[in-house]
Amino acid sequence: MASRNIAKYLQQAVAAVVERGGFDRHLAKVNIVSGGDGRCVAELVVQEEHKNSVGTLHGGFTATLVDAISTLALMSAEKTGPGVSIDLSVSYMNAAKSGDKLLIDANTVKLGKTLAFLKVDITNKETGRVIASGKHTKFVG
Amino acid sequence: MASRNIAKYLQQAVAAVVERGGFDRHLAKVNIVSGGDGRCVAELVVQEEHKNSVGTLHGGFTATLVDAISTLALMSAEKTGPGVSIDLSVSYMNAAKSGDKLLIDANTVKLGKTLAFLKVDITNKETGRVIASGKHTKFVG
Amino acid sequence: MASRNIAKYLQQAVAAVVERGGFDRHLAKVNIVSGGDGRCVAELVVQEEHKNSVGTLHGGFTATLVDAISTLALMSAEKTGPGVSIDLSVSYMNAAKSGDKLLIDANTVKLGKTLAFLKVDITNKETGRVIASGKHTKFVG
Amino acid sequence: MASRNIAKYLQQAVAAVVERGGFDRHLAKVNIVSGGDGRCVAELVVQEEHKNSVGTLHGGFTATLVDAISTLALMSAEKTGPGVSIDLSVSYMNAAKSGDKLLIDANTVKLGKTLAFLKVDITNKETGRVIASGKHTKFVG
Repeated sequence: MASRNIAKYLQQAVAAVVERGGFDRHLAKVNIVSGGDGRCVAELVVQEEHKNSVGTLHGGFTATLVDAISTLALMSAEKTGPGVSIDLSVSYMNAAKSGDKLLIDANTVKLGKTLAFLKVDITNKETGRVIASGKHTKFVG
Repeated sequence: MASRNIAKYLQQAVAAVVERGGFDRHLAKVNIVSGGDGRCVAELVVQEEHKNSVGTLHGGFTATLVDAISTLALMSAEKTGPGVSIDLSVSYMNAAKSGDKLLIDANTVKLGKTLAFLKVDITNKETGRVIASGKHTKFVG
Repeated sequence: MASRNIAKYLQQAVAAVVERGGFDRHLAKVNIVSGGDGRCVAELVVQEEHKNSVGTLHGGFTATLVDAISTLALMSAEKTGPGVSIDLSVSYMNAAKSGDKLLIDANTVKLGKTLAFLKVDITNKETGRVIASGKHTKFVG
Repeated sequence: MASRNIAKYLQQAVAAVVERGGFDRHLAKVNIVSGGDGRCVAELVVQEEHKNSVGTLHGGFTATLVDAISTLALMSAEKTGPGVSIDLSVSYMNAAKSGDKLLIDANTVKLGKTLAFLKVDITNKETGRVIASGKHTKFVG
């Protein structure tokens, strides 16, 4: 499957979970840029709905992005379902504000028989400034 | 300030951020049980809106709870604002499903001049089963 | 098996790995206080050999204690081997210096069929001051 | 300062802490390959003294490498001391055995006025297989 097709498949996966209506509906404005071979790159323009009480990107939403986009990276590897979260961590480095375009780059560092290790870098697409980085370990057995 | 008054103050803090309308609006159904001296205990009944695509508590929302309730614990310590997140981690131990009542117990492990270290345990209130545990480090300088 | 016997068993486990001569030889001065049912409590007096370049407890040795004592906690649960590390994290809260007596309290938060979730609190036994806290996730399947 | 000179400076920093005799003496066999601008690349051949009870690289020593090499990366940035550890996490992906040559690549992701965020990738130099990855947050204020 070509990279373009995988990006399309991942965008459909996003649409499906948004449609289902749970907490994943907050991914509605995520745009998949590319994907495949255990990687998923997405973009998102920060909106009012993603902000915390001081007007910048909410740490809980940042963690939600780490969770969701790394899961799409995992799903872009052949024959892999979404798995189940074991451990997730996020380091918060710089604030992002409303209107900022985020680049979310998620990679599968290791995909084993029972465990997958994923990492995510979130940067401001225009300035290149790093916003947050995360790790996500999932059970895929 | 008595513990009851602090719980009331924390519930008002929740109401204020929910009102402001950003990502914190997802705390609307959080009920503060008690608070004070760096601790905040809250309850939440899992709803459809908190679920992931397989019908259980969403990992991103779990992280949002770790973030938010530990911040309330911090704010319950005297003269402390909400601080800024540095590192957050969550371990996911058991699934929670729609209708489950969660007990979220957040504690300030250390409050220094520049850094605060917080921890959070999320359990199923009826079964006592642990759902997740988290750590949260904030800058308060 | 009574708690006293389990403590003895865990102390023997320490002696065995120290004897084997790898990196675990640094546990030589660890004294097991009690153990059983997924918990292990140990003591250690900080020595020159455990210090960093500024004269306080070394962060790498702190992580080694989190790793090792949580593994003993896991082994104190019935029929459980040491497992394999998946994720480990440590938060460093206060310094400890040479001669300080550390209390290391490790607990099994969840022991499932394939995964174990452990937590560790390290405090200064005399002052009660928290030195560090850690989480450790292991594969036990 | 040219990259070769910084590598030399970092190797001298290793020698100095090894000489001082605390827990950093376990870095004695670390060879600095290159350094500068917030990055430090090192090599180490796994020895008996670095192993756990099942004969592979010890998780506590892996954490010690994450701690130490990321601190060297930080020190390679201009006018920066070693800082103080706040949070450290390690994900363990594959085992390494005696004789394996490890490549340890540490980078400063963000260096702010009070906080530094560092990441470390440890791979088997010959096979390219990832052994572990870590994050390290330090206070530098």
